[in-house]
Amino acid sequence: MMLSQSVLDAYAVSAGSAFQFLKTTTVKERAVFMQAVADQIEALGPELLDAAHRETALPLPRLTGEKARTVGQWRAYADAVAKGLYVEARIDTAHKEKAKNDIRKYSIGLGPVLVFGAGNFPFAFSTAGGDTASAIGAGCPVLVKAHPGHPETSRIMAAAITAVVEASGWPPGVFSHIDGDEVAGTGERTGAYLTAHPQVKAVGFTGSYQGGKALLDIAGRREEPIPVFAEMGSINPVFVFPQALEQGAEALAKEYIASLTLGTGQFCTNPGMVIGVKSAALDRFKQTLRTGIRDILPSVMLNEHIYTNFEKRKTLLSEQPEIHIWAESAIPATGGQGRARVVETTAASFLTNPILGEEVFGPFGILIEAGSWDEVAAVAAQLKGQLTVTLVATAADMDAYKMIIERVKDKAGRLLFNGMPTGVEVVYAMQHGGPFPASTDARFTSVGPDAVKRFVRPVAFQNWPEAYLPEELKDENGLQILRIVNGQLTMEDISSGVCI
Amino acid sequence: MMLSQSVLDAYAVSAGSAFQFLKTTTVKERAVFMQAVADQIEALGPELLDAAHRETALPLPRLTGEKARTVGQWRAYADAVAKGLYVEARIDTAHKEKAKNDIRKYSIGLGPVLVFGAGNFPFAFSTAGGDTASAIGAGCPVLVKAHPGHPETSRIMAAAITAVVEASGWPPGVFSHIDGDEVAGTGERTGAYLTAHPQVKAVGFTGSYQGGKALLDIAGRREEPIPVFAEMGSINPVFVFPQALEQGAEALAKEYIASLTLGTGQFCTNPGMVIGVKSAALDRFKQTLRTGIRDILPSVMLNEHIYTNFEKRKTLLSEQPEIHIWAESAIPATGGQGRARVVETTAASFLTNPILGEEVFGPFGILIEAGSWDEVAAVAAQLKGQLTVTLVATAADMDAYKMIIERVKDKAGRLLFNGMPTGVEVVYAMQHGGPFPASTDARFTSVGPDAVKRFVRPVAFQNWPEAYLPEELKDENGLQILRIVNGQLTMEDISSGVCI
Repeated sequence: MMLSQSVLDAYAVSAGSAFQFLKTTTVKERAVFMQAVADQIEALGPELLDAAHRETALPLPRLTGEKARTVGQWRAYADAVAKGLYVEARIDTAHKEKAKNDIRKYSIGLGPVLVFGAGNFPFAFSTAGGDTASAIGAGCPVLVKAHPGHPETSRIMAAAITAVVEASGWPPGVFSHIDGDEVAGTGERTGAYLTAHPQVKAVGFTGSYQGGKALLDIAGRREEPIPVFAEMGSINPVFVFPQALEQGAEALAKEYIASLTLGTGQFCTNPGMVIGVKSAALDRFKQTLRTGIRDILPSVMLNEHIYTNFEKRKTLLSEQPEIHIWAESAIPATGGQGRARVVETTAASFLTNPILGEEVFGPFGILIEAGSWDEVAAVAAQLKGQLTVTLVATAADMDAYKMIIERVKDKAGRLLFNGMPTGVEVVYAMQHGGPFPASTDARFTSVGPDAVKRFVRPVAFQNWPEAYLPEELKDENGLQILRIVNGQLTMEDISSGVCI
Repeated sequence: MMLSQSVLDAYAVSAGSAFQFLKTTTVKERAVFMQAVADQIEALGPELLDAAHRETALPLPRLTGEKARTVGQWRAYADAVAKGLYVEARIDTAHKEKAKNDIRKYSIGLGPVLVFGAGNFPFAFSTAGGDTASAIGAGCPVLVKAHPGHPETSRIMAAAITAVVEASGWPPGVFSHIDGDEVAGTGERTGAYLTAHPQVKAVGFTGSYQGGKALLDIAGRREEPIPVFAEMGSINPVFVFPQALEQGAEALAKEYIASLTLGTGQFCTNPGMVIGVKSAALDRFKQTLRTGIRDILPSVMLNEHIYTNFEKRKTLLSEQPEIHIWAESAIPATGGQGRARVVETTAASFLTNPILGEEVFGPFGILIEAGSWDEVAAVAAQLKGQLTVTLVATAADMDAYKMIIERVKDKAGRLLFNGMPTGVEVVYAMQHGGPFPASTDARFTSVGPDAVKRFVRPVAFQNWPEAYLPEELKDENGLQILRIVNGQLTMEDISSGVCI
């Protein structure tokens, strides 16, 4: 669908004007709004699940879980916002020994945020997903560029948010749903056009490297560069260490296959790579992998584009001369169904052919057999930034391979000790983001309440009269938020003075 | 001075290897190191002040104050680092109702940080300045590109830090002093070369727009883009409102001149612009400005380059056809001494000639007389991002011009109610940074302990064995830092369990 430039400009201007309103809301008011969005989504009937199932081919149980997760995200972020964690209030009162002036700082939204929904999470990382919740929590209006893979799902979610905007009496520009891919008459993509729009002050994106990098470049070429947080996926290496492998090669291989093929491998935390050193135990692991993968039921991928791309990339990697063996699901697949495959190569090959380190989005894994731990260290050093790195290890392995473990810390946002990386919990301690190219800025996360931080900026008020300060910075702390007052974290009312 | 590529590469590699060490230090160990640097600088004798005075022409009392400020910065940042404020520890223990896994997150350094010293603060924002202290506090090795305006000062400061590195038994790559502007045989600048170096993971810069923007562009073109925090100055507009002006136009004009000419106007928070509406009181303000500026003693600027640039920019702005009057210091100046000047124009002119809104680094101010408050609002809307905006106002003015005040909030990092913006206190509540082009990323500050945040990234550990967790995340909280445990901020030892 095409949209005219003037329609897009109107959305952007409306968001800019809504920002003037949002700036004046308190953390509590935004938290109430966010809880109302959670209620609204929770109350959505089967039409939501049906539309998503029809548009993404994701099974209903998975979608039911994702809906609950989405509701949970709005509630968890709302709680964190209400506590004042992301306004980061700091008060330094004037006193003889230290500050000369009364200075108080808190964070406001950056301005309108452009959100790109992800195709693989139609609820949790799309129209009403984590980026939208983070931006609203930060005090930013949101312009959602609807994902073309699930337009009806996106419209239902957009309507849920719009209903809360209306019921709250908030200006309509707080949330806009941009349902169209191209700017009429220009051939330009709506997403690119809006990323370059002066009213837009930040971008949240989940998707491919190509997509995220293109937005980052557009944002950097603006007269006023703006922050882009793009989560661009990764291959999520799994390092298997000798003692752990010795204790259960077959069980580990089965656990790996289950994670690799979960949801037809369509997760950004899909473990697309295993690295180990040649041994009898690794042979058993490989054997179980080769036979186990044959039994994996092919399933329909998110859309034609994802499926075609999966087949193309899978074939490209498999056809590299360094791939000496591969195994795949033996169960016949019909059109659009991804068949899981694992391929094997050596560390020496991996180190010389960069194609072998590229992500294949879908149920595809590469096993890298190293001849020595030095080779494993070289593979670790060559790895690009990752969302996750998993260590399959025992305590003895951790002691023996300390240096390798220290080095992989530099490569990822989340480090798992055993287990598998699929499953990204929405908790404070979650880090979903990592060194480039896993994300565009390793300093932030797109999952967990801390995701709000991406969209705020601090503003300091110097000698500002109490009456004109935002609620968050007034002496009495009526909102009961956490603040740092003269260096001490406190929730105290300081209207009768501060102990220094 | 020229440096060879191999020397620069060696510095970068040494920093990269020191990062592996720094990553393993605790917040307490880094805080101890930082306090030792503070001690070392404090103990420096007159040779430091003499060198700086000779190289920058800054008066000794000012340098004495700046030295104390620099020591204070190291101590304040060390305190904040020791409290764990910037590791932002979050622990979510596995429990039936909420998290499925035990996930713990804290922040580590980004890696080696390249710091560019500023010419106007040879101590506080240069070799041993705020960026270096922030980076070390974050756990990042530092490569300082010495400012060519004060090489000897820079060497003395570098030696002080190096002495602490040695005394602590830390690897030498923790701190490197790059004293040379050009890469031998290439014509390339050392700063540009190192910004593009794969070992460098972030940049801290204080200086001109041209300099900061060039680094931002280099960093964005890297295969792995890295964050650049550049503080690039601004014109720091002062809005004068009617009732405040009525109550003391003459006193305000004098206060303004004092701030404008302090330190020969060589502050990034220098108030280079005043905006008011035509009135008898504004006429009195202007009259005092014109006569007051005549008595300002010219003083030697930081260096020949700064002086020449000041004269050139001052003349360019004064010669714009829209400048109908200007006044300057009537006291004869000798070579290298900047003579303070103020020029006057109308809001209509300001809105049409963008040159009038450009920064002139030095004692130069532009007064903009608006015909109406609508014109003031238009000027406010057209302003680029600023470090500060000052409102000279009474409570009645704040009520009457609420809309304008709301709009200027979007333009600055620090908002002053009366007073003048020069003087940037090193406190938690300080915000020094603002929307582009005041800085490259409005989400961060380069003054106050929060400056550390620029150089850290979170890493999450999932189901990690207690013994292998960093001290900051171990159950017992032996470092006694603030942590969010299952959503609650606490300093508790959780080794005997957590209440949910």
